[in-house]
Amino acid sequence: MNHRLVLYMLGQILRVEAVFLLIPLIVCWATDGGGAMGFAVTIAVTAVLGQTLVCCLRGSQRSMQARDGFAAVALSWVAMSAFGALPYVISGAIPNYVDAFFETVSGFTTTGATVLSEVESLPKGILFWRSQTQWMGGVGVLVLALAILPKSGEGSVYLMRAESPGPIKTKLLPRLKDSAKALYSIYIGLTVGETVSLRLAGMSWYDAINHAFTSISTGGFSVRNASIAAYDSMVIDWIIIIFTFLAGVNFSMLFLAVRRQFREVLRNEELRLYTILTVGASALIVANLVAVGGEAFSGKTVTDAVFQVVTVSTTTGYSTTDFSLWPTFSYTILFLLMVTGACAGSTAGGVKCIRLVLLGKNLRREVRHILHPRVVQTIRLDGDRVGEETLSSVSLFFFAYIMLMLIGGLVVSWDNVGFLEAMSASLTCVGNVGPGLGALGPSGNFGILSSLSKVVLSANMLLGRLEILPLLVLLSPSIWRKK
Amino acid sequence: MNHRLVLYMLGQILRVEAVFLLIPLIVCWATDGGGAMGFAVTIAVTAVLGQTLVCCLRGSQRSMQARDGFAAVALSWVAMSAFGALPYVISGAIPNYVDAFFETVSGFTTTGATVLSEVESLPKGILFWRSQTQWMGGVGVLVLALAILPKSGEGSVYLMRAESPGPIKTKLLPRLKDSAKALYSIYIGLTVGETVSLRLAGMSWYDAINHAFTSISTGGFSVRNASIAAYDSMVIDWIIIIFTFLAGVNFSMLFLAVRRQFREVLRNEELRLYTILTVGASALIVANLVAVGGEAFSGKTVTDAVFQVVTVSTTTGYSTTDFSLWPTFSYTILFLLMVTGACAGSTAGGVKCIRLVLLGKNLRREVRHILHPRVVQTIRLDGDRVGEETLSSVSLFFFAYIMLMLIGGLVVSWDNVGFLEAMSASLTCVGNVGPGLGALGPSGNFGILSSLSKVVLSANMLLGRLEILPLLVLLSPSIWRKK
Repeated sequence: MNHRLVLYMLGQILRVEAVFLLIPLIVCWATDGGGAMGFAVTIAVTAVLGQTLVCCLRGSQRSMQARDGFAAVALSWVAMSAFGALPYVISGAIPNYVDAFFETVSGFTTTGATVLSEVESLPKGILFWRSQTQWMGGVGVLVLALAILPKSGEGSVYLMRAESPGPIKTKLLPRLKDSAKALYSIYIGLTVGETVSLRLAGMSWYDAINHAFTSISTGGFSVRNASIAAYDSMVIDWIIIIFTFLAGVNFSMLFLAVRRQFREVLRNEELRLYTILTVGASALIVANLVAVGGEAFSGKTVTDAVFQVVTVSTTTGYSTTDFSLWPTFSYTILFLLMVTGACAGSTAGGVKCIRLVLLGKNLRREVRHILHPRVVQTIRLDGDRVGEETLSSVSLFFFAYIMLMLIGGLVVSWDNVGFLEAMSASLTCVGNVGPGLGALGPSGNFGILSSLSKVVLSANMLLGRLEILPLLVLLSPSIWRKK
Repeated sequence: MNHRLVLYMLGQILRVEAVFLLIPLIVCWATDGGGAMGFAVTIAVTAVLGQTLVCCLRGSQRSMQARDGFAAVALSWVAMSAFGALPYVISGAIPNYVDAFFETVSGFTTTGATVLSEVESLPKGILFWRSQTQWMGGVGVLVLALAILPKSGEGSVYLMRAESPGPIKTKLLPRLKDSAKALYSIYIGLTVGETVSLRLAGMSWYDAINHAFTSISTGGFSVRNASIAAYDSMVIDWIIIIFTFLAGVNFSMLFLAVRRQFREVLRNEELRLYTILTVGASALIVANLVAVGGEAFSGKTVTDAVFQVVTVSTTTGYSTTDFSLWPTFSYTILFLLMVTGACAGSTAGGVKCIRLVLLGKNLRREVRHILHPRVVQTIRLDGDRVGEETLSSVSLFFFAYIMLMLIGGLVVSWDNVGFLEAMSASLTCVGNVGPGLGALGPSGNFGILSSLSKVVLSANMLLGRLEILPLLVLLSPSIWRKK
């Protein structure tokens, strides 16, 4: 790879991070003042390092190739998390660096798994940074950089491709930069809309902004120990249900909806599966809670079920109830939703519905091939032909995803937590969901795990967020060779 | 499909089953006499029905096509299990028909999951039939039929292809019938070898034959309540370890070894992975049992670990110890081995090592493709080029396998057993392993599950044994249309 170019990109991203770190610093001063020192030091370090890299290596952003783009993206996420963890350590909020790194990776990848058992006593600025990492990670910091930087070089398409989720890349608008801006307009629009709605429903401005940040990014960090259950308000529950559901929709569809092209939205097969899974899973959980769990069929039961389904399938991970206490069937459904995830091109993680649609179609073709060995069959999605290379990538992605879950689960199981805990911890991290099940569920936290487990789970979160392959590229010895 | 042809094949297979049912009838008379009535009635029913079908539809075995072959295989397995369950019901050993069907499917598919909590009080003839179903199912009843029937028609290659496991079909010898005979010679040779070894190690002839039947077929039914632990003999443990390990090797490799072509055996990549997984998993479990489980590093600990690894990875499923009581890491490894399975072309179930080798190579190619987008890379196995169609099938098989596990687990979870129980029950059935984990582990049994769960798990066992696609073909409406 082109080392100079990749380091130049890292420098740029660290500069961007330094600018974003100013926001929680301002929040510190405006509120309880706690943690300000941590931000000041971190800003100084990242700004100086970033500026140095950019100045020394300016002029090297010509001739970016795919491998450079993937390497830059992968290393940027690691670097951002490594430096983003410093405020937690310096302020003493999370004294152990491995824990702080885990929390930061969990933030930037919009996972929402936490090592903290108690957050309300922490400085407001620290909690704001925690929510803000999720908001930044939501659509991708590099895409953001593309949108705001004056000149992004000709290879920037590789960056966007590596960072945006989904097997089929769609451009909203002919020019990449316009696409990024449209994306960000929707993102910011949703965030503002949810903030105002939550404020009107009774949250303070601070709580409303934090929760809007972490729900539109499908992150799931909360500033309250009890998460959304703390507000005990069905209105707030439903506001969050609606906005997180929207955040799980492919932003291209939201863009089309804004432009009133509803016909195209309605024929989107992924959106259909996403809706069916959400409604179906909610209905099954309600049925199970009433039939096996002994709960009454009430508005509260339905709200809890829908809330958990949406928060898990969009890989947000808030809680309004401790679903670890639900009957097995209900949390098995949640486990499956952790695998499926929501839509590609959204802020959600997981395998994503579009891949399941393609895998299902491919499997049906394989069965038909047995029956009609000589007929050549093409696979179409939303009316367009899907290439064999894409289909093959999708199948391999699924394999890699399951292997990551199993291997991660195996490592965590050495800590002798239960099987459910180990597997769900690994899956929740690969899928960027947040809470696991059992002792790692909404009322537990990841602090009980060993440092080895936390490092492996951090890797799983990054792999899941970058859709595995861009990070696996780093394992290839040939990429480290100088060109 | 060609209904007449498929019914003709079903008739043939029922006749073969009637002949094989004579054996346990003889065992009944030679031992305690219990259950003879059940066998007599079943023989009469299957023989008359089979003979009727064959006589009425003789002459229709011309022009068999792929679809007919797959349908015949799939329906044969269902029919054999449906009739093979009758002796249990009539003799009163398993009064409930769904339970008896589950037990028979578990037998023919060489799974070894049982609804019985107590077997030693059952008639010896019934237990012999139970072991014998596994031995018959081991290499495939239809391949057996091919080998013994005088004339098997030109389409018989489809039967063999549908029933023999693995993504790449190898023929031992140029003629199909010679291949089947070579296969059966090895199978019978191993069975005789193990019977004699177990007898010499102290088992009675009856116990030795039963256990040889169920270990060479990697089935795992035992005639003792405590399974192999009942003998409390390390010599017996190691005899079974060696023979089940061999039964998990591709029979083509055993055939080559018999012919002293060791070079080809040693360069077989699947065999290498199988050996590495067996040795690696054993070492990790021993380490975990000593470091976390608090057991002493002794011959007993090593034997238990190796025994469980081999019995699970070959999908046999005996037990010498209740591994549900092991630390989480150890049984998580066993869970992973249930996924991997042993080698294709053996009697074992699971995804099989050859597919993992191919998936791994394919994933590595995908990563390399990012780095070198313009280089066309072919994948080789044991030096031979693997076609893209095979690679695609293998990926889809993995997807279908995991989906079956997850969907089966979801159905079982409605019974409100634990998550570990539900998922492992489904996986153990798809992989044809036998015992699950937790409450469905070696000391438990599947009798606690609902009828719905048993039916779904029976389907999973059949799907797993027939490698999914041949049975999925039956779901396609077009196959039921008359040609």
